[in-house]
Amino acid sequence: MLSNHLQNGVETAKLIWSRLPNSEVEADEAASGEFSRIKKDDGSTVESLDYEVIENYAYRQEQAKRGKVYMTYSVVVKWLMALLIGIGTALVAVFINISVENFAGWKYSWTFNLIQKSYFTGFLVYTLINLALVLSSVYIVTQFSPEAAGSGIPEIKGYLNGIDTHGILLFRTLVGKIFGSIGSVGGGLALGKEGPLVHIGACIASMLGQGGSTKYHLRTRWLQIFTSERDRRDLVTCGCAAGVAAAFRAPVGGVLFALEEVTSWWRSQLMWRVFFTSAIVGVVVQTAMAWCKSGKCGHFGSGGFIIWDISGGQEDYSFQELLPMAFIGVIGGLLGALFNQLTFHIAYWRRNYLHKRGNRVKVIEVCIVSLITSLISFGLPLFRKCTPCPVADANSGIECPRRPGMYGNYVNFYCGDKEYNDLATIFFNTQDDAIRNLFSAKTIHEFSAQSLLTFLVMFYSLAVVTFGTAVPAGQFVPGIMIGSTYGRLVGMFVVNFYQKLNIEEGTYALLGAASFLGGSMRMTVSLCVIMVEISNNLKFLPLIMLVLLISKAVGDAFNEGLYEEQARLRAIPLLESKPKYQMRNMTAKEASGNQRIVYFPRVVKVVDVLSILRSNNHNGFPVIDHTRSGETLVIGLILRSHLLVLLQSKVDFQHSPLPFNSTDGPVPIRHNLTEFVKPVSSKGITIDDIHLTPDDLEMYIDLAPFLNSSPYVVPEDMSLTKVYTLFRQLGLRHLLVVPRASRVIGMISRRDLLIEDNEDTLAIELQSTSVRDHQDGRRALRRKDAEQPLLDGLIV
Amino acid sequence: MLSNHLQNGVETAKLIWSRLPNSEVEADEAASGEFSRIKKDDGSTVESLDYEVIENYAYRQEQAKRGKVYMTYSVVVKWLMALLIGIGTALVAVFINISVENFAGWKYSWTFNLIQKSYFTGFLVYTLINLALVLSSVYIVTQFSPEAAGSGIPEIKGYLNGIDTHGILLFRTLVGKIFGSIGSVGGGLALGKEGPLVHIGACIASMLGQGGSTKYHLRTRWLQIFTSERDRRDLVTCGCAAGVAAAFRAPVGGVLFALEEVTSWWRSQLMWRVFFTSAIVGVVVQTAMAWCKSGKCGHFGSGGFIIWDISGGQEDYSFQELLPMAFIGVIGGLLGALFNQLTFHIAYWRRNYLHKRGNRVKVIEVCIVSLITSLISFGLPLFRKCTPCPVADANSGIECPRRPGMYGNYVNFYCGDKEYNDLATIFFNTQDDAIRNLFSAKTIHEFSAQSLLTFLVMFYSLAVVTFGTAVPAGQFVPGIMIGSTYGRLVGMFVVNFYQKLNIEEGTYALLGAASFLGGSMRMTVSLCVIMVEISNNLKFLPLIMLVLLISKAVGDAFNEGLYEEQARLRAIPLLESKPKYQMRNMTAKEASGNQRIVYFPRVVKVVDVLSILRSNNHNGFPVIDHTRSGETLVIGLILRSHLLVLLQSKVDFQHSPLPFNSTDGPVPIRHNLTEFVKPVSSKGITIDDIHLTPDDLEMYIDLAPFLNSSPYVVPEDMSLTKVYTLFRQLGLRHLLVVPRASRVIGMISRRDLLIEDNEDTLAIELQSTSVRDHQDGRRALRRKDAEQPLLDGLIV
Repeated sequence: MLSNHLQNGVETAKLIWSRLPNSEVEADEAASGEFSRIKKDDGSTVESLDYEVIENYAYRQEQAKRGKVYMTYSVVVKWLMALLIGIGTALVAVFINISVENFAGWKYSWTFNLIQKSYFTGFLVYTLINLALVLSSVYIVTQFSPEAAGSGIPEIKGYLNGIDTHGILLFRTLVGKIFGSIGSVGGGLALGKEGPLVHIGACIASMLGQGGSTKYHLRTRWLQIFTSERDRRDLVTCGCAAGVAAAFRAPVGGVLFALEEVTSWWRSQLMWRVFFTSAIVGVVVQTAMAWCKSGKCGHFGSGGFIIWDISGGQEDYSFQELLPMAFIGVIGGLLGALFNQLTFHIAYWRRNYLHKRGNRVKVIEVCIVSLITSLISFGLPLFRKCTPCPVADANSGIECPRRPGMYGNYVNFYCGDKEYNDLATIFFNTQDDAIRNLFSAKTIHEFSAQSLLTFLVMFYSLAVVTFGTAVPAGQFVPGIMIGSTYGRLVGMFVVNFYQKLNIEEGTYALLGAASFLGGSMRMTVSLCVIMVEISNNLKFLPLIMLVLLISKAVGDAFNEGLYEEQARLRAIPLLESKPKYQMRNMTAKEASGNQRIVYFPRVVKVVDVLSILRSNNHNGFPVIDHTRSGETLVIGLILRSHLLVLLQSKVDFQHSPLPFNSTDGPVPIRHNLTEFVKPVSSKGITIDDIHLTPDDLEMYIDLAPFLNSSPYVVPEDMSLTKVYTLFRQLGLRHLLVVPRASRVIGMISRRDLLIEDNEDTLAIELQSTSVRDHQDGRRALRRKDAEQPLLDGLIV
Repeated sequence: MLSNHLQNGVETAKLIWSRLPNSEVEADEAASGEFSRIKKDDGSTVESLDYEVIENYAYRQEQAKRGKVYMTYSVVVKWLMALLIGIGTALVAVFINISVENFAGWKYSWTFNLIQKSYFTGFLVYTLINLALVLSSVYIVTQFSPEAAGSGIPEIKGYLNGIDTHGILLFRTLVGKIFGSIGSVGGGLALGKEGPLVHIGACIASMLGQGGSTKYHLRTRWLQIFTSERDRRDLVTCGCAAGVAAAFRAPVGGVLFALEEVTSWWRSQLMWRVFFTSAIVGVVVQTAMAWCKSGKCGHFGSGGFIIWDISGGQEDYSFQELLPMAFIGVIGGLLGALFNQLTFHIAYWRRNYLHKRGNRVKVIEVCIVSLITSLISFGLPLFRKCTPCPVADANSGIECPRRPGMYGNYVNFYCGDKEYNDLATIFFNTQDDAIRNLFSAKTIHEFSAQSLLTFLVMFYSLAVVTFGTAVPAGQFVPGIMIGSTYGRLVGMFVVNFYQKLNIEEGTYALLGAASFLGGSMRMTVSLCVIMVEISNNLKFLPLIMLVLLISKAVGDAFNEGLYEEQARLRAIPLLESKPKYQMRNMTAKEASGNQRIVYFPRVVKVVDVLSILRSNNHNGFPVIDHTRSGETLVIGLILRSHLLVLLQSKVDFQHSPLPFNSTDGPVPIRHNLTEFVKPVSSKGITIDDIHLTPDDLEMYIDLAPFLNSSPYVVPEDMSLTKVYTLFRQLGLRHLLVVPRASRVIGMISRRDLLIEDNEDTLAIELQSTSVRDHQDGRRALRRKDAEQPLLDGLIV
């Protein structure tokens, strides 16, 4: 069917593609994703991810020689990377926590001391410290790393879905995120450091994978195994899990978060490595905490770093409590959905009007938010009159009142000797301590309903306004704050209503926190596990599940999850796992539109390549060749990025328009694989980087060694639902739409794909009775087919 | 390109495929799996799963009218099913536990009373009770439900991978599994009831999905939404999760087990429903336990039902302990791999020699195992001399000695007043209580090293021998027994070696259990979560992770996991997620072999259909049609099972050899979708069920309405690695291998698949600035393409 000439081209391409050292690489080619550059409204661009790796023959030939040793080596390096990501992320998390706790601790101590003398001086110092910290954060972000603003989770989700937002995984983003987080969280804004930690984990992973920052990376040979996009994506997934594990000290939660929320293509092999990274994070954080316990870390150590233990709380629950718990779920769903909607609109307005006016506006905006936050958190507790301390029980270990910013309840704030201010206990305190106080058991009636309601309204508004400003900001901790406030409020009513039950308000606060996060982020299993891990109590697992189910269901009735909404806003075009409804009535041909297909011949003149690349912005081009009988055949697909590399390097230019013939000997080695790999988060080569002499333009390139010789194809009238499933499941970047086939060469069913490993001789021997018999039977049947002259009329 | 005539055929098929009420159904068609019948060595067959559902026009037309209401309804039914599966599985689990605990409780009480008088009478009664229980179990299994033997997890894994082992999800298997488990576990064999519970959950789910048992199922209209294999598979996944959740009272562990171990195609939408099922199980079991606490359930209630709480144990761990813990991991890996290897060989021998001799041999075999087990568990403790009870601490609440079969340590066994027998504490006890004793804290030096070692060797041997006998048998609890024994042994040495540390032997027992399960089953995250949930202690999470990592790595160096080995032994051909190494050098054409393709024309004579079906055992046939110019075109794929339905029902036979023309009006409604659906675990229609008159044979069938008009295709020279990825990821059953395309009609990239929901008007409006601009730009570019005469030479 294929003429010799043509066959030669296909064979050459296949030759090279088949020389890959291990099966991962070609599967990788399948599991790829792409999106062409989209001009966003703020002038920045979202870039395509060139997942498809050219299997450079030179590099692969070299690797193929190494064989088993290389494969072992590559596995070792991958695990080593997982180890390093775990250690790195854990250390950064500890560093951020130490810094934040110390800044906040100093701030509250100092302010508190000043309050004793002058209320106004205290307020002034408090406000100025907050402002200074927040200013440092916004300065770093606006001047140095604009991509560090926000939580970064939508962008990471996009990266793992196949969209490389420019600058998202750079070294400067990492630095901006670390120091920006310290400033914004230390400065008392209504945001958390947990979302940024996920981004930080991803950055660390990405940089480790390419041996340093994009600009100055070490081109170490031993990192060349991470030249495939799939391996890099795996590393980033590990980084995300490490981030969550470090942020919440929740290793299992981290694995599940990576699985449920961020990845698009999950492989069970990866789970194992992600799990390892999380375990490492757990061990390193544990060790650091133990080291800090001796007081070497300042204010950090005694409290701090999540785990709001409620193991001392409620022992059991009764059926009567399920109703108020369901009610908490409904509130969570409603408030969460409202939060998503409000933040969406405000962020939209910010992106399109406010932030277009430049960095100065961004800085001023953050400063105003900081001032308002300081004013409210300092001012409002003033209006609350102090509450007398509960009658001290010698065994309970409750100390009342305490200084703000320290670990514990009953914060003194301009109160008398045996009094505390309940609003200050949650408002004039670090968020970690506030949550711990809200979750605390054995402290019934610590808070008045009025204080909780005031706090809920104020903090909710602050959280909505703060979201989307130009500082690194996570939504987990604010969400937990909001949720636990109304949870505790409901708990108070339950305590009053069911007088006799052994109910702890802290339990309801925990459920409230779960419900708000469920209503806003719409995660299920991972959130549930994170809540269990941070509360260190497994007893409430079914209750948390129940509340999450309700709040997610209620939230889903209104809008999408927070990350999806934000991804949409940022024009990160995520491919969902499920095809859209209207795709049912479309075909592949309709979806591909009526664009004229731009082909390349196998051997193409350089000047033609250049003009074609200039004339359109396609990212992939089919390559055709002619058989001797004059028929055309599609021999593969070539990527724009690879063409640009070929044009830039020039080494593959040839004078003759004749294709390379594989009978002439092995394909000459001219390229290094790394040349074809675009560094993460950078723009790669553009057509403007190409400088060619007139002589160059008259030369030819044989594309056969560089093309993907068998891209996936779909018939023109296939339903778009099926096309979508294929595209999404395999993570493709290009699909060729071809005419219906005129004949079928073979059928592949499961039995054709059951190939036994040759190494497992014992197993094959054992299996022979079952499998070989069957195969023999099958062969016999085939022979029988061949002997059926009766059916000749039907057999083509 | 397509002539009118041909177009008509394709259009008719497309017409019907496009009338599906919601997108799930067609995606389902994509996510399908198949395996043709394999004759196994024991004469039984593994059957194909006809995942591909014919989209019967009659049914679909009807549903399409219902529209939104139907979709809401189908969602409600799905959730209702999840609820019912949860409740059903939980109740069965409670029933099994109550029965086992009571049988075992009576047995031990009675025996213990008899021992006081005569040792021999006690032994006789003990042995006979055990034998009677085990006999009942093996009788049920051999006579009534042979598929209930073993754990059933490999078969369920196979089902979810696309292989329907005959009889695995029938009502009789469910009944056999429930009562067989009670007999075999109550009879004191070295096996557990947790694996069978997974199978039970799957059976319940499958039966609920088809409205009762296969034989007598209610053909209720409201269950017709479960006619698609994907929906059924989802239900079975829910059932597996419910089984684990109920078996271990570990809801999150259940979800993760379903995710990590049993499913092959996971969708994030499903996670949510599985999670719900698990939560329901948790609530129902909790309620039942609370009800039993008042003593209504006999011996069940006080202890029983897993959760071996070690929350009162070790508070912290030091670095010095990591070495012995790693050592436990290594032992676990070695012993686990050895266990897999031994059971594999023994089971192979059993299948091929012993069990072929009939049911009587199976019964005798189980009886002998039961006798040996009784003898060892009763006899060995006799050789141990009694140990004096530890000095009682009034506050510790430790009672010594106790009667066997009760909740607690220090079992009295023919001992004096203040003495206990340490070997009897673990051997002459229910497994649940034995594990609780091994895990127990504050009981240092309860067991002597000699006893533990004896128990380890004996129990390990018993577990190996018992595995594979004809009774329902799980490997979780025996694994935990074995692991915790050597774990506690290591713990004892650590206690002796590091005198000063606050070390609990129970902690090491827990780690030992984790390590053995990790070394044998090779699960990671799910096992880790299950261990945490059953020990009700989150503190050891990083340690369990570490131990699991080591034991799995060590085990992987030797062989595959237990379930994979067993699946291989049972000739369940699982398609792994990763392609095999040797596929790299093969093409699609080579894999499909040189078989002659058997085509059907669009309109085919009944006699020809019959002879083709008789002449081969293919399960799918390409259908071709001719254009007016005489060219042939492949218009789709028809399944053998659907052809058989057509032949059996006869309603679609026609006298004319002319195809149905869609311009004549709507396609006539003759079929009900359920007719095309094969009941689970049954053989479906075979060719012998077809009875046709000579008149029938001369008639024709127009296949167009029944064929899958666009099956997935691959070019003939595509690397088999890529083909495998496509086949496995989409869960296909047939792939057509076609020649290389001669031209490309269009290219589909991510942007072509980003279709916005029309309902979301606000979002579209907001997005317009980013997306519409971009699309306009793209259109402009296309126009530009069209205006490039310079490139005409290259544009075909």
